[in-house]
Amino acid sequence: MNPIFEEHPHRRYNPLTDSWVLVSPHRAKRPWQGQVEKVAGDDRPAYDETCYLCPTNTRMNGEVNPDYQDVYIFNNDFAALLEDTPPHSFEEDELFKAETERGLGRVICFSPRHDLTVPEMEEAAIRKVVDAWVDEYLTLGGKDFINYVQIFENKGFVMGCSNPHPHGQIWASSSIPDEPMKKQIAQLKYWQKNQRSLLADYIEKELFKQERVLFENEHFVALVPYWAVWPFETMIVPKRKMARISDMTDAEKDAFANAYKRLTVRYDNLFETSFPYSAGVHQAPTDGEAHDEWHWHFVFYPPLLRSATVKKFMVGYEMLANPQRDITAEKSAGVLRALSEVHYKTK
Amino acid sequence: MNPIFEEHPHRRYNPLTDSWVLVSPHRAKRPWQGQVEKVAGDDRPAYDETCYLCPTNTRMNGEVNPDYQDVYIFNNDFAALLEDTPPHSFEEDELFKAETERGLGRVICFSPRHDLTVPEMEEAAIRKVVDAWVDEYLTLGGKDFINYVQIFENKGFVMGCSNPHPHGQIWASSSIPDEPMKKQIAQLKYWQKNQRSLLADYIEKELFKQERVLFENEHFVALVPYWAVWPFETMIVPKRKMARISDMTDAEKDAFANAYKRLTVRYDNLFETSFPYSAGVHQAPTDGEAHDEWHWHFVFYPPLLRSATVKKFMVGYEMLANPQRDITAEKSAGVLRALSEVHYKTK
Ligand SMILES: O=P(O)(O)O[C@H]1O[C@H](CO)[C@@H](O)[C@H](O)[C@H]1O
Ligand SMILES: O=P(O)(O)O[C@H]1O[C@H](CO)[C@@H](O)[C@H](O)[C@H]1O
Repeated sequence: MNPIFEEHPHRRYNPLTDSWVLVSPHRAKRPWQGQVEKVAGDDRPAYDETCYLCPTNTRMNGEVNPDYQDVYIFNNDFAALLEDTPPHSFEEDELFKAETERGLGRVICFSPRHDLTVPEMEEAAIRKVVDAWVDEYLTLGGKDFINYVQIFENKGFVMGCSNPHPHGQIWASSSIPDEPMKKQIAQLKYWQKNQRSLLADYIEKELFKQERVLFENEHFVALVPYWAVWPFETMIVPKRKMARISDMTDAEKDAFANAYKRLTVRYDNLFETSFPYSAGVHQAPTDGEAHDEWHWHFVFYPPLLRSATVKKFMVGYEMLANPQRDITAEKSAGVLRALSEVHYKTK
Repeated sequence: MNPIFEEHPHRRYNPLTDSWVLVSPHRAKRPWQGQVEKVAGDDRPAYDETCYLCPTNTRMNGEVNPDYQDVYIFNNDFAALLEDTPPHSFEEDELFKAETERGLGRVICFSPRHDLTVPEMEEAAIRKVVDAWVDEYLTLGGKDFINYVQIFENKGFVMGCSNPHPHGQIWASSSIPDEPMKKQIAQLKYWQKNQRSLLADYIEKELFKQERVLFENEHFVALVPYWAVWPFETMIVPKRKMARISDMTDAEKDAFANAYKRLTVRYDNLFETSFPYSAGVHQAPTDGEAHDEWHWHFVFYPPLLRSATVKKFMVGYEMLANPQRDITAEKSAGVLRALSEVHYKTK
């Protein structure tokens, strides 16, 4: 990379969402006198009787969780999307447009163990989470009123997660949400122009450059994208173009579990803390089309910037004008690449 | 409004940015067990010798602030954009594109008084802030390498603001940032189609409907936009189409100061706390074009949802898929409309 971009403010283009990020490499030196985050105590019991996600406990709506052994999935008791939504659409003119949105929300407990998180789970247990995602994608996506299935995880209090029990969510909707829609449009344009997958071409070039790649296994590459917005944003991309996670072979599912664990262990090791993030899958809609343009991938958006307690605030300029970051993607990749894949707690 | 939208999950269209927001009215009932924000103590002295924004104090770079009487402006000591940036652009192919970004960052102290915030300032003092913004917009925008001037304020620790002394920022750049660019494209399309201002038509309809308007004065309307994302998001819109804040008459500048104060007093009264937000102006670029399509406006994005300590987290689904809100714009408007315009501290 041209050293000019290592030192000077610049913009980088995100070809997946057709947007720009402002990069201010010199700004990492700025002193921080602002808000400092609380670090959650790491001394959780394996079972917590007050946790509504632990096996055998009673949830707010009176339902009792089974004594589950690996993954447990149920309908979100406070879902933002509901199956029982009457169809209605309203368009007074181009300024007032609304339509009801049918959908549903699911919660996935990743493990019965209250004290674990993904980086501390066995690969075989993570593989069960992957299998559950594939099942849910197929079952939910198979419903005629569901056209997009968003699989994600909010981890850590700083990410608005209200329960440290390892779990993720699925929000399935009739319409295709804005972010995946942007990626679909960009991938389709690239596909039509080049008859190739945007992300397959991208990771091929990244594997050649070796500036932002963290590691690879037989089927996946983990990297800090060239256009990363969050300080330690990363992506796990399958080497083979697949539109959806249900296209994975058994070997690919194992390889994904491997990459997921290795990346999150590095994250925990970065500041020797349970590393917060929002993460999830972007993949083809379930609208019955083939979607040859789609190359699914897994993204991580972690908020921490300098330590376990100092995060990057996406406020002010970022909300009103343009996302902005204070270190380059290459610097972040260098830091993450140098970290051990042995979890700090087990050392 | 059709009561169906008061009860059921739905999407609303934002014609200014050509995007959608998911609204889940039923979800406000959800219990909150997550992160609770710290409330900053409100007992600040009028002068704080450790504050780098107070008059006569020395800043980190050794410069001494003058004994200023109203507004004081200086170059940001840790600006994300720098004037001294060499031009360079890079485009390997459509996947790797970057260009250096020349610009500058300014800090505006709104008052010498460390203990005040906008809602506690006199209208005449707020008017001086407005005058300073106009000056800066003209001076910075007059430079040949500046094509957009983003005026904004981050208020409160929860918004990443590191100093409670009342102040705002200006980031001026060579390129037009993503958010204003989206608004420009939408307004231009509307202008070309209808020969009318999108926002003039919009506020005319809102003044007729009276569902989301908070108040108006002779020259401005304050409202919760139909497509609001943040729980108590608002806009102040001039009744007359003006492309830029420098088009305001004296009377309009006074009227803006009046609306700005009245709205922020209501905000402070909402949870009887110094109400955090990011706020700022969206207006025409300074690229030498007329920009007849632009109708400038002032937006407020406040994070609080239910109390001084419980905020809305835009994470997970919102980051990966689509912005989502838990109460309708109409409910929020009703709450803000019912509040007093006398600041709770002076009661
Ligand atoms: O410039 P400040 O106030 O130190 O920093 C704050 O505002 C900036 C502009 O919105 C953001 O980029 C930073 O993340 C935030 O902490
Ligand atoms: O559903 P939860 O975990 O209670 O809530 C969390 O995740 C949701 C989906 O990302 C967000 O809408 C909420 O703001 C956040 O607090």
